[in-house]
Amino acid sequence: MSAPLHGVTVVDLSRVLSGPYCSMVLADLGARVIKVEPPGAGDDSRGFAPFSGGESAYFAAFNRGKESLALDLRQPDDRAAFERLVDGADVLLDNYRPGVLARLGYPRETIAARWPRLVHASISGFGQDGPYATRTAYDLIIQAMSGVMSLTGNEGQGPARVGTSIVDIATGLFAAVGILAALAEQRGAPGTPGRFVDIAMLDCQVAMLEHALARTQLGDPPQRIGARFPTVAPSDAFRTTDGWIVIGAVTEPQWRGTLQVLGLEPLREDPRFATMALRVANHAALKAAIEAVTALQPTAHWDAALAAAGVPCGPVRTMADLLTDPQLAWRGMLVEAAGIKVAGSPVRISGHAAPTAARPAPALDQDRDRLLAEFR
Amino acid sequence: MSAPLHGVTVVDLSRVLSGPYCSMVLADLGARVIKVEPPGAGDDSRGFAPFSGGESAYFAAFNRGKESLALDLRQPDDRAAFERLVDGADVLLDNYRPGVLARLGYPRETIAARWPRLVHASISGFGQDGPYATRTAYDLIIQAMSGVMSLTGNEGQGPARVGTSIVDIATGLFAAVGILAALAEQRGAPGTPGRFVDIAMLDCQVAMLEHALARTQLGDPPQRIGARFPTVAPSDAFRTTDGWIVIGAVTEPQWRGTLQVLGLEPLREDPRFATMALRVANHAALKAAIEAVTALQPTAHWDAALAAAGVPCGPVRTMADLLTDPQLAWRGMLVEAAGIKVAGSPVRISGHAAPTAARPAPALDQDRDRLLAEFR
Repeated sequence: MSAPLHGVTVVDLSRVLSGPYCSMVLADLGARVIKVEPPGAGDDSRGFAPFSGGESAYFAAFNRGKESLALDLRQPDDRAAFERLVDGADVLLDNYRPGVLARLGYPRETIAARWPRLVHASISGFGQDGPYATRTAYDLIIQAMSGVMSLTGNEGQGPARVGTSIVDIATGLFAAVGILAALAEQRGAPGTPGRFVDIAMLDCQVAMLEHALARTQLGDPPQRIGARFPTVAPSDAFRTTDGWIVIGAVTEPQWRGTLQVLGLEPLREDPRFATMALRVANHAALKAAIEAVTALQPTAHWDAALAAAGVPCGPVRTMADLLTDPQLAWRGMLVEAAGIKVAGSPVRISGHAAPTAARPAPALDQDRDRLLAEFR
Repeated sequence: MSAPLHGVTVVDLSRVLSGPYCSMVLADLGARVIKVEPPGAGDDSRGFAPFSGGESAYFAAFNRGKESLALDLRQPDDRAAFERLVDGADVLLDNYRPGVLARLGYPRETIAARWPRLVHASISGFGQDGPYATRTAYDLIIQAMSGVMSLTGNEGQGPARVGTSIVDIATGLFAAVGILAALAEQRGAPGTPGRFVDIAMLDCQVAMLEHALARTQLGDPPQRIGARFPTVAPSDAFRTTDGWIVIGAVTEPQWRGTLQVLGLEPLREDPRFATMALRVANHAALKAAIEAVTALQPTAHWDAALAAAGVPCGPVRTMADLLTDPQLAWRGMLVEAAGIKVAGSPVRISGHAAPTAARPAPALDQDRDRLLAEFR
C-alpha cells in the first residue's frame, strides 16, 4: 500500500514544535520531508527533555520519518545545496521570525521568482506583518494573548495554561491544511502558481475559541470555571475514591439516569434542581450532593454504572492510563520513538496502512551524502 | 480572485461542532458545502446559546458560507434527493455514531460501490470500531479520557477543562487534513479510488499531548501546575494591578533582562536562583519575589518594559481585549456573523482573498428549491 502524499517532497527549515508538527503530519501521510538544520546542534529541540538513552524523546516524537541535512545558509556552498534541494521540492516550510529568511537572501519575491511552482508556508507568531509582527512568540505567550488562558482554570483563581503546547500544535495543523489546499489546487489546475501560505500562531488559537468571543459581545462573558461547562449541569468532574469522573447530563433522561445510578432520586423533587436552568444556577449545591456519593466508590465503578444507564461519562485519565488503553491499542495510536511509546497519526485513510512503521527521527546530518548525491 | 478549493463540493451530514468546524475550514478555502439537516429543528446547534437577535451565534459562526437542505433520510423521496446530491459531490462528511449511517441504508460498502470516486470522512468519538466504539463522546468526556484534563489546572486541585471545546475543534482540523490529503492524492493520480477517512476524537486529542506520554514513561509524569511551564522558570503568569502578565525567560539574557526591568538585580546573586535548574526547583519563591513587583503596576506597563528589554512576555487577555486588538484587525481575523464579530479563517494563501466575505450561515432548508433543481 502506498500513501496519500507519496511523491510530495517537503524541504523543512522549521525548528522546535509548530513547523515540525506540520511536517510530521505530512510525513505520516507519506510526504518525503527533508529537514535542513543548522550545523552544530541542529534543531533546538534535539536538546529538549525528556531524554531516552541520551536521545531527546521530544525531538524523536515529532521528527519521525524525516531525513536530515545540516546546512549553514550563510555559506555559499551550503546555499547552493539548499537551492538544489528546493529545485526538487514541492513544498518549503519555515517558522523563522518575519524578515529572517529575507536577511538570509531569500525574500518572498526571490522564492516566488526562482521557484514559481513551489508551495511556501511560513509560520510565525503574529503573521508576516502588522503591529505585532516582530514580537517574540512562544506557546505560553500566545496562550495568554489569544485569551485561552483567561478561560482556563478554577473559579476565582489565576489563569491556567492548557497543559500541552496547544498553540504550536494547532498552528502546525492549520499550516498543514493550507499546504494541502494549495497542493490540491495546483494538482487540479496545473497552471496554478505556487502559493505562499502565511500562518500566525495568534490567528490559529483565536480560531479555536469556540463561542467565547460571541458570549462576550452578547452579555455573558466566559469565566474560568474549572471542569464545568457553563450551560449544562451536571457537567463537571467529580471526586471518586481513586480519582475523578466526568458526568455530562445534557438531556432529561440523562439527568434522571444520573440520579438513579447515584441513588439520589429524591433530588428529582428538589426545587433547586427542577430545570436545567435551575441546576446551572445551583451547580455548587448539586456538585456537593453528587460528590458526596461519587467519593464513596472508585472511578471504574461509576464509569461502568453510568455508561450502562446511558449517561455520558468518562474517567479523568492520566498518561499512565493511556499507555495501557485498549482502544488506543486497537487503533494503533501509540507508536515507538526513542524506545518509548508516543502518539501516532490520528488520520486513518482507507487503502493506506496506518502510518505506524515510520523510520525513526534522523540523527543530525545523517542523510548528507545521499541527499547531496541525489540533488546535484 | 478564486479560492484554492473552488470546484470542490462537500455534502455535509454532520452536526454541532467537530464536523461543522471541518466543513467551515473547507468552505473558508472555497469549497461548496451543502449542509443536509433533519427537517424540523435542523442541526442541534441551531438551538445553542448565545443568541443574537433570535439567531444562534454559535451556529452562525461555524456554518458561514454553507447551503442548507432539510432531508429525512428515512423517506424514499428524500433519500433519492440525497443520493443525487452525492452523485455530484467530491466529499461526504458525517459525524454519526458508528453504525448509524449503515442503519440508514448507507453502510460503507454501499457508499464505496455507488460512489467510487467519493472521499468519505466519518468523525466519531473513538473510531469506527474497537472496544469503546459505541460509547458516548462529548468534548468534556474526551478531554477527560484523553488525559488533557489531568494536565490542566492548578497544583493540588482538581482537573480543569480547557476553556474551549478543543477536542471537537482539533478533530475537525485533522478531518480536514485527511480529506485534503485524499483529494490531493486523487488529483495527482486520477485512477485513485475515493478514500474513507476515519477520524476519532480520542485519537486526535491524544495526538496533541506533546511530550506528556514520554515524560511519564521516562520517570517525570506531568502534573497540573497552573500557568507554569515545567522546565523553565520564570515561565508563569504574574499578577498586576489590573490583570496578569506572562513572562517566559528561557535564556540567560532573558533572565537578566527580567530582573533588570523589575528592579530585582539582587536576585542574580541569590543562590536559590543561580541556574535554570535551581530557579525551577525554587519556582514558588521566585514567583513570590516577581509578583511582589508586578503587582504594583498595570499589565501594559510591564508588557512594554519587558518587551523592550527583549524578554518574552505578553498580557493575559480577555475576549474583550481581543475584540479591539490591532493585530487581529490588521490580519482581518474577525469577521461578522449574526451581527457580531467571530473568528475568521487563520489560513492565508497568496493569490486568494482572505475569506472574510463569506455568505452568512443558512436558514434551515433555505436552498431547497435551487438545490433540488440543480441536482436532478
